[in-house]
Amino acid sequence: MTITRKADFPGLLTAEGKAWHYLDTAATAQKPQIVVDAAAKAMGADYATVHRGVYSRSAEMTLGYEAARRRVAEFIGGQEDEITFTRGATEAINLVAYTWGAQELKAGDRILLSRLEHHSNIVPWQILRDQIGFEIDVCPLTVDGQIDLDAAEQMLTPQHKLVALAHVSNVLGSVLDVKRAAGLAHCVGAKLLLDGCQAVPRVPVDVAALDCDFYVFSGHKLYGPTGIGALWAKKPILDAMPPWQGGGSMIDRVTFEKTTYAPAPQRFEAGTPAIVEAIALAVACDYVSGIGLEAIHAHEARLVAATREALRGMNDVTVFGPEDTAGIVSFALDGVHPHDLGTILDEENVAIRAGHHCAQPLMDHLGVPATARASFGLYSDDDDVAALIRGIDRTRRIFG
Amino acid sequence: MTITRKADFPGLLTAEGKAWHYLDTAATAQKPQIVVDAAAKAMGADYATVHRGVYSRSAEMTLGYEAARRRVAEFIGGQEDEITFTRGATEAINLVAYTWGAQELKAGDRILLSRLEHHSNIVPWQILRDQIGFEIDVCPLTVDGQIDLDAAEQMLTPQHKLVALAHVSNVLGSVLDVKRAAGLAHCVGAKLLLDGCQAVPRVPVDVAALDCDFYVFSGHKLYGPTGIGALWAKKPILDAMPPWQGGGSMIDRVTFEKTTYAPAPQRFEAGTPAIVEAIALAVACDYVSGIGLEAIHAHEARLVAATREALRGMNDVTVFGPEDTAGIVSFALDGVHPHDLGTILDEENVAIRAGHHCAQPLMDHLGVPATARASFGLYSDDDDVAALIRGIDRTRRIFG
Repeated sequence: MTITRKADFPGLLTAEGKAWHYLDTAATAQKPQIVVDAAAKAMGADYATVHRGVYSRSAEMTLGYEAARRRVAEFIGGQEDEITFTRGATEAINLVAYTWGAQELKAGDRILLSRLEHHSNIVPWQILRDQIGFEIDVCPLTVDGQIDLDAAEQMLTPQHKLVALAHVSNVLGSVLDVKRAAGLAHCVGAKLLLDGCQAVPRVPVDVAALDCDFYVFSGHKLYGPTGIGALWAKKPILDAMPPWQGGGSMIDRVTFEKTTYAPAPQRFEAGTPAIVEAIALAVACDYVSGIGLEAIHAHEARLVAATREALRGMNDVTVFGPEDTAGIVSFALDGVHPHDLGTILDEENVAIRAGHHCAQPLMDHLGVPATARASFGLYSDDDDVAALIRGIDRTRRIFG
Repeated sequence: MTITRKADFPGLLTAEGKAWHYLDTAATAQKPQIVVDAAAKAMGADYATVHRGVYSRSAEMTLGYEAARRRVAEFIGGQEDEITFTRGATEAINLVAYTWGAQELKAGDRILLSRLEHHSNIVPWQILRDQIGFEIDVCPLTVDGQIDLDAAEQMLTPQHKLVALAHVSNVLGSVLDVKRAAGLAHCVGAKLLLDGCQAVPRVPVDVAALDCDFYVFSGHKLYGPTGIGALWAKKPILDAMPPWQGGGSMIDRVTFEKTTYAPAPQRFEAGTPAIVEAIALAVACDYVSGIGLEAIHAHEARLVAATREALRGMNDVTVFGPEDTAGIVSFALDGVHPHDLGTILDEENVAIRAGHHCAQPLMDHLGVPATARASFGLYSDDDDVAALIRGIDRTRRIFG
C-alpha cells in the first residue's frame, strides 16, 4: 500500500525547490499545509483567548479549544475529560512524575523502565527518585532490540508501583506488546505509563483497548504544531492527582488564606493555554485519520522492509533493531561516524539523524556512541529510500 | 502621539468584515500579519527540529531559535544566556518556584507578594509554601490601587527571601516603582521577581537598569504566539538553579546510575522546544520595537485618559485604579453586572473582559465579585473608546 501525499507538505522541498529526502520524521514531522493554514487562521482572523471572554469570538475560540481536546481524545480512544494539553510528551511525563509520582511513590517502592527509553522517560523519574528514594529497575532488551517482557515478568514485584515504557522505540522502531505489558504491570498492582511519541503517528492507538493508565505524546511528531502535546490518564487516576503548576484557569477560588482547585483536566492547565496549537493539532489528527493509521503503518512498514533489505546487502553496514519496526531504521556504516554520514547525505538533500537520539543508555547497550537513523513518515516514498542508499554508497566511496 | 496600525492585524475585523473594537488586549494581544506569516513559514517551508540535526535545515532552524533567544533577551535588556523559553509567564513563575524556591526557601522564611497579584503569582507560591512551610506576606495597596511600597518597607525583614510583584497590574494598570521595590528587596537580602506580562507590551523594560532578579512574561500578550514565554534571571542565580523538568536537551550525560545536566538555560528546556513560537515571538519583538515602547505607552496613556475622563462624566460608573495607568481601565456600572455589560457590548462589536481577571484577592479588596475591564493595545484608537462609551450608554438604557 502506498500513500502519495508529498504535495501536501510545504516543508518537503529544498530552498531551491528540489525534492528534500526528509528521513528525520521521528525527530519531528513535517506539517501538511492544512495544519499550517489552521494555525495561521487561529492566530489571525479567528484569534481570541479562551475560557474567559464574555464576547462571542472568545466563546467560539473556547468551543474550538475544547473541540480540539475532544478530537485528540477520540484520536487515541479516550474521553475528552481525560486529556490534559501539555507542551509535549516530555512535559506530560514530568506532570505525571510531579503529581501522581510525588503523591503515590514512597521510599522502598520500585518502578520499572526499559533500557531503550528516551531520556524524557528516564530523567523525570531519576529527579523524583532523588527526592523520594524509590528504586528504578531497568528491563533488559531481547537480542533484536525489543523490551524483554519475559524478563519484566520475572522482575516485577508488588513493590513496583509503575511501569513506564516506550510504545514504539524512537531509535529502533520496536513496537511494544502493550496488552501483555499492561497485564504484567496490573498483575502486581503497578500502573502502566506509555510514551506514545513514536506510536501515535505510526500505529493505531486505542488507550481503552490497550488498558494502559497513562499515555503521552507530542503534537509536533503527529504532523501538528510545536509547543503542544497531551497527557491521557484514566479518569479516576487523573481526578486523584494533586495540582502541579499553579496559576490562572486551574483554580476554583483563590484567597491568600486558602486556595481551592478546579477539577481535572483544567487543574493541570495553568495559564493561558497553547490555544492556536491545540486547534491546529486537532486538524493534524483529522488529516492523519483521513489517511488512516493502518494504511500509514503498512506504508512505512514497506519502506522499512525495503531499507533493511538494501542495507543488509551491504557487508559494511550493521542494522539495529527487530525486523518489523514502526517506521524507523537505525544502522551504522563501518569506519564512518554517523555524523559524517549525515553530513555527506545532507549534500545529497537526504536528512537523517545521527547521534544518541536522547537514548544514551540504549547507545551504551548497543556499544556505540551514536547511530544513523532513517525514520519515515506518511509522505516518505521509494525515492527517499533510493536517495538514502545512493548517499551511503557515495559516503563509502569518499571514506574508502 | 497616535499610532495607526490597525491594518496590520487580521484579527481586528469581525467575520462580516466590520471593525471589531477589541479592548481585551490585557488578556491576549492580536497578532500582526507579519508574526502570523513568520509562524506559517517556520511551520512550513523552513521547518525542521533544532539542536540535533546534522543536516543544514536543522542547523538553520537552530540558528533561528537561538537568534530568537538573543532577540528576546535584547528586548528586555538581558543577555541571551539569561533567557529560558517557557510556555508562558505562568510556567516561568512555576519554574522559579520549583527550582530556586525549592532550593532556597526554608521553613521560617518569608516571601512578600501584593494584594493585586495575578493568580499565577500567588498560587505557585502557595503550593510551595504548603510543601516547605514558609510564610507569605501580602503587601497592601494604596487608596488608588498601587502596591504600597511604604508598607512594603515596613513589612520587609531579613527573614524575607523573595519579593514577587506585578510590574503592571493586569486589572488596574498600576505601574510599579520597580527601582524602589528592588532597593527595598535587596536591602533585606531578598530577591525581586517581576511579573512583566502587562509591562513588556506597554512600557520600555530594561532588566539591567531595573535591577530585578527574575523577570517573566508571555509571548501572546506581546503580539506574539500562544505557547511561548520567557523567564529572565540574573546569570549567577540561573546557574545555581537545579533542574526541574527532565528530558531530552537538558542533559549532559544520562546513565541509569547517574545523570548530569546541561548548563543553564538549556537545563530548563527539556524536550523539543516551541521552535515555531520562539521564532515568531522574535518577529513580534521586532514589530513592537519598530514602533517603540515609548510611543506605545504614550498612545495607550492618551486612550486611558480619554476613557477615564468619559467614564468620570457618568455618575453611575466607578473607575478603579490610579490615574496614570499603563493601558488598562477597570470600572463598574451601578446596577449592571460586568458580565451583562460585556454581553451587551459584544452586540456592538466591543470586546471587553468582565470577571475576576485571575485576581480574586484584588476583587475581595475592591469589594466586588468582578470588574469590567477595557485594555488597550498599540492598535487601539479613539473609535474604540467611542464605541465603548456608546455601548455603556446603551447598556444603561437597557437596564434603566
